[in-house]
Amino acid sequence: MKTDTLALSVGDPAGVGPEIIAKAWAALRESGPVFMAVGDLQSLAAAGGGVKVRPVTGPVEAAQVFSEALPVLDLPLQSPVVAGKPSSAHAGQIIRWIETGVGLALSGAVAGLVTAPIAKAPLYEAGFKFPGHTEFLAELTAPAPFEGARGPVMMLTAGDLRATLVTIHQSVGSVPASLSVERIVEAGLVTAQAMKTDFGIAAPRLAVAALNPHAGEGGALGREEIETIIPAVQALRERGVDARGPAPADSLFHADARATYDAVLCMYHDQALIPVKMLDFWGGVNVTLGLPIVRTSPDHGTGFDIAGRGLARPDSLIAAIRLAAEIAARRNA
Amino acid sequence: MKTDTLALSVGDPAGVGPEIIAKAWAALRESGPVFMAVGDLQSLAAAGGGVKVRPVTGPVEAAQVFSEALPVLDLPLQSPVVAGKPSSAHAGQIIRWIETGVGLALSGAVAGLVTAPIAKAPLYEAGFKFPGHTEFLAELTAPAPFEGARGPVMMLTAGDLRATLVTIHQSVGSVPASLSVERIVEAGLVTAQAMKTDFGIAAPRLAVAALNPHAGEGGALGREEIETIIPAVQALRERGVDARGPAPADSLFHADARATYDAVLCMYHDQALIPVKMLDFWGGVNVTLGLPIVRTSPDHGTGFDIAGRGLARPDSLIAAIRLAAEIAARRNA
Repeated sequence: MKTDTLALSVGDPAGVGPEIIAKAWAALRESGPVFMAVGDLQSLAAAGGGVKVRPVTGPVEAAQVFSEALPVLDLPLQSPVVAGKPSSAHAGQIIRWIETGVGLALSGAVAGLVTAPIAKAPLYEAGFKFPGHTEFLAELTAPAPFEGARGPVMMLTAGDLRATLVTIHQSVGSVPASLSVERIVEAGLVTAQAMKTDFGIAAPRLAVAALNPHAGEGGALGREEIETIIPAVQALRERGVDARGPAPADSLFHADARATYDAVLCMYHDQALIPVKMLDFWGGVNVTLGLPIVRTSPDHGTGFDIAGRGLARPDSLIAAIRLAAEIAARRNA
Repeated sequence: MKTDTLALSVGDPAGVGPEIIAKAWAALRESGPVFMAVGDLQSLAAAGGGVKVRPVTGPVEAAQVFSEALPVLDLPLQSPVVAGKPSSAHAGQIIRWIETGVGLALSGAVAGLVTAPIAKAPLYEAGFKFPGHTEFLAELTAPAPFEGARGPVMMLTAGDLRATLVTIHQSVGSVPASLSVERIVEAGLVTAQAMKTDFGIAAPRLAVAALNPHAGEGGALGREEIETIIPAVQALRERGVDARGPAPADSLFHADARATYDAVLCMYHDQALIPVKMLDFWGGVNVTLGLPIVRTSPDHGTGFDIAGRGLARPDSLIAAIRLAAEIAARRNA
């Protein structure tokens, strides 16, 4: 049975995940969107600062109890959680929580998946082979059909800014060699399509950021614009995407500039993340575009340094839950 | 005779310089700071949209007439100016205007120098050999004595943000090889000293941005933090500078973060310019630190595309004039 309930994988239980999930539930219990945590009931109860938790059998029951208690699809851990101390002993279940969320989303039993942060090191120790959540989700959803340009493509949102990353977690020095016409075109096609299907924008305008200062100044400050980014913009336009650029990145992110586009392709991590975190340091959302399932996540990490101290802010997770519900509603409309 | 008058070199007369100088004079004629344009009287009058211009013999007379007319130290051009059409025929005088301003500032006849934008191409055609204004000013002021850490070091200011650039106009791909402990330490020493002498901050706190996302994540996303930036921060601390970092650049520029430092060292152009232009797209100021003279400039270019159409905004030039006057007052206090 299809529901509006979202699945929320708990991520690393030694991080801030359980705490911000409890806080998000407290903030959303009356208004929704309805979600169901997929994780270990006991550690959620312990980290929740007194919020009521309730084991549920699935998304329908979760929707029924949501206003009363944080619903948890309980897939218990085999060893105790120490806040701030990640353990590879938990890796198997952390992965299972994600797989379960994906399975529920693929089946349509939940409307989408929100993932709380994971830490890579303890998962790697246990044999996890993916650079991160996003690649793992792409693998898990690969057999499912998907119409149009397929991702995964990572987008960050904050306020009125939607920024797609062409390269993500890599050194600045390695970025130029990672840029290619194909890669930029792919990110552009997925982004443009997602603007329509997921964000409800009928004729999306796509800005493309330059890599180099002053957009390379005709080649004097770098040739990637001439050799890669300009051809990619042209190719996107030939494919029917209203793409413009490359524009100097320092002129793309003030309010007047943001009003001229619906999404912007950024060439490297900080080019997107500096503006995102200036616009909303606490409430940015990571959205994976071009997947058969709806998937969002907070734009922060596990926060082991503050875990278990009641300090973590749920803003980003709450924004991620809301955005997942919006996208799910549009996809199902 | 020493005055509070600033010299303002007109820069490329075919750009927006003459227009924004006239607008800045109209905005500041009653309040000050007092300045004297160093350039071609006729083209200033033509571009000024009807503001009164008056030839003056120097900064004292300029101060006397400032409330009545835009004072111009007239060093005439030999050929007509066409708005939007730079010409190498003007190169000699453009350079002479800058040299004259520097000479007046070195002698103390003016309190400081504000430079309107130049375009490099027409100057290069005429044999100019410097990458830009800043390097030319460094050469011109090299014989003058200067106490402490000598620049030039480029800083951008906007709102409460002061951002020093360790590398400036170069491709992103070339940045990693340009970073060195020496270069970062030098920029840090000049910045810390200028915070005291020029900005009146007795115990300046200096943030240092990372190059790579997540500050390199312990080396996984780049080794420049480990090999270069962390040793530079340590070296700065050993030299008595309250330097902190390297911090992930995406967590350095929101309001709460800005409140924790007085200036930030940025590793590359857009790392500084994205935040600067988000905080104040029109009013950012370029300050050259560590020179024997006070020097500021607007943070935009010649704007040939809009020159002569009355569209150019003087915000950045006005902010540059005000900041030059503030710094001059502190240096002379």
